[in-house]
Amino acid sequence: MSVTAAAGFRAAGVTAGLKASGRPDVALVVNDGPLDAAAAVYTGNRCKAHPVLWSERASADGRVRAVVLNSGGANCFTGPEGFQTTHATAELVGELVGCGAADVVVCSTGLIGVPLDRERVLAGTHAAHAQLDADGGSQAATAIMTTDTVSKQALVHGDGFVVGGMAKGAGMLAPGLATMLVVLTTDAVASAQDLDRALRAATRTTFDRVDSDGCTSTNDTVVLLASGASGATPEPAALDEAVRAVCAQLARMLVADAEGAEHDIAVEVVGAASEDDAVEVARSIARNNLFKTAVFGRDPNWGRVMAAVGTTGAAFEPAALDVSLNGVAVCVGGAPHADPADVDLAPREVHVLVDLHAGDASATVWTNDLTHAYVHENSAYST
Amino acid sequence: MSVTAAAGFRAAGVTAGLKASGRPDVALVVNDGPLDAAAAVYTGNRCKAHPVLWSERASADGRVRAVVLNSGGANCFTGPEGFQTTHATAELVGELVGCGAADVVVCSTGLIGVPLDRERVLAGTHAAHAQLDADGGSQAATAIMTTDTVSKQALVHGDGFVVGGMAKGAGMLAPGLATMLVVLTTDAVASAQDLDRALRAATRTTFDRVDSDGCTSTNDTVVLLASGASGATPEPAALDEAVRAVCAQLARMLVADAEGAEHDIAVEVVGAASEDDAVEVARSIARNNLFKTAVFGRDPNWGRVMAAVGTTGAAFEPAALDVSLNGVAVCVGGAPHADPADVDLAPREVHVLVDLHAGDASATVWTNDLTHAYVHENSAYST
Repeated sequence: MSVTAAAGFRAAGVTAGLKASGRPDVALVVNDGPLDAAAAVYTGNRCKAHPVLWSERASADGRVRAVVLNSGGANCFTGPEGFQTTHATAELVGELVGCGAADVVVCSTGLIGVPLDRERVLAGTHAAHAQLDADGGSQAATAIMTTDTVSKQALVHGDGFVVGGMAKGAGMLAPGLATMLVVLTTDAVASAQDLDRALRAATRTTFDRVDSDGCTSTNDTVVLLASGASGATPEPAALDEAVRAVCAQLARMLVADAEGAEHDIAVEVVGAASEDDAVEVARSIARNNLFKTAVFGRDPNWGRVMAAVGTTGAAFEPAALDVSLNGVAVCVGGAPHADPADVDLAPREVHVLVDLHAGDASATVWTNDLTHAYVHENSAYST
Repeated sequence: MSVTAAAGFRAAGVTAGLKASGRPDVALVVNDGPLDAAAAVYTGNRCKAHPVLWSERASADGRVRAVVLNSGGANCFTGPEGFQTTHATAELVGELVGCGAADVVVCSTGLIGVPLDRERVLAGTHAAHAQLDADGGSQAATAIMTTDTVSKQALVHGDGFVVGGMAKGAGMLAPGLATMLVVLTTDAVASAQDLDRALRAATRTTFDRVDSDGCTSTNDTVVLLASGASGATPEPAALDEAVRAVCAQLARMLVADAEGAEHDIAVEVVGAASEDDAVEVARSIARNNLFKTAVFGRDPNWGRVMAAVGTTGAAFEPAALDVSLNGVAVCVGGAPHADPADVDLAPREVHVLVDLHAGDASATVWTNDLTHAYVHENSAYST
């Protein structure tokens, strides 16, 4: 598992000195081909970091040879100097790898508004290139960690091809992606159009439905590279499913590692008039601070679920709503039913099930509880 | 100050045994006239509590003789029995006061999904009626408290008339009102139309711009009653301003008493293309958990302000944004400016100023920081 599980890829992770902790902070992933097809999706935040602005253009033609990533600085709102740092990094990777700068995707993560040390990034990029290895995936995954407590890698085997990936992200997870960087690689033979279809479908039901704290980052990037080195050309559905499965694995790892969380909460909405309605309701619950603190306190306070449902525009009648918490039907037909005291919220996994009784559509959004540790970690991030 | 400051009103607050704490929990406010004009606004939450469903109809004709309020139970998602409890309470007040049940507004606050003890509410209503007093405003204000640490009352003197009021609310403050109950009284001579105009204008820029934690309650009610007992008929602008001023005072008290807060944060957005844009941006910042935890940690992490701005649809260019924190211009033209270390976040009052450089409109939204105490209080509310 990892970005080097697929044939045709090398990677490395090194320490460039961007992090005060002295941990690895620059990663490089190179596609040695024969193909250089790629697709990418980026943050929906309108305040995009310099590397996102660069990479959107670099990946627009569906060709990417390398991805260079740094932790230790988001390079966002850093002025013209910041964009030049991104550009210089892409130029250097192009020279080293033997491609144009416009075939290089650049990703950064860390604090906004703090200049990124260009010399260190470039030196780290040199070092990473020198250490590129067909087994370097794990080193790369480690070098992109910020507040992550574990590195995140996944692998799915298709029929004659594989899809592997790495991710970083441990908070600020929200739609339009989570604050996360994700690099996916496959040795399947696939066009940029194939990859774009597979990636957009996958992110829509995985990363876009992870909503740890409702905050959308300026740097989110998910990029999928195909080398074609396996020689296998999967059916579209098989490629789609393999990409979706890797994204689902990584998305769950992000939730499980969310900053300070004690519970992973699956908010499942069924009986919705449309999938959009189901997602809207699930997301409203997932973002409700009062509900999230109640789960932390192991308090089966289903009224807070109802209050969150009521703020949406979804089709439903209040008197028809059913709510179950971890399998206990605490509310049926808009009235109290089973005793909330029977709900066991001790396990890490919490399942909230809401039936809108308005149709056949459904969706699940994953979130976390709101804990003392979340407050502690995020109140002390930059200082 | 209080709901009995205006001539023509009596009030009382009593202990009916709805709260485990044994504190006062039923309040009654009666308008002795000569007028019984009224206006009200209610929660935007679609899951409205039974008292809200009742009161919307009762106040629709612009005539209200009495308001009966209870803490110790929201009477929301309590089934048909819950609505009958509201109805029976209004019927009783009507009998006691000598009006129709349809001239009685009912307000409840407390836990959702827990039946409200009808016998106790009715007994408390009887007791409150027996204690009605022209000096009873403070007792009434005390009886509607839930997690409030102080009772909240305000008074504004107009030319020959006064507007007084009381409020409860200490969390779950969000647009479409905060979880709050507010009763405003005036002895001005005013029609229901006058009151409706004044109240809607006032709530739009006061209670609707208090956003403690983004959660909208099922029970929010703001009602304004006019007795006409002063004999003074104010100009529309004078009435509007007096009502606005009382609402502004009470709204600020709600923010200052928000559950577990250590900072009151004014998020001011200027240079917006429209007031709607300014409110959208201010609210996005006010709801950003990462920014709110940073303020708690006294961390001048202005990147989190920028990330929140970027999730809106307002007109702006990222490279034109200015941000100041407590008067220190940490970001000018989308790039770092003054040293964030110069920002002093020790005082309770925090001022965030964002200039979108896209027009002349502005708005301020009030919120609080996200603290350990918020998590503690809300994780232990019902259990």
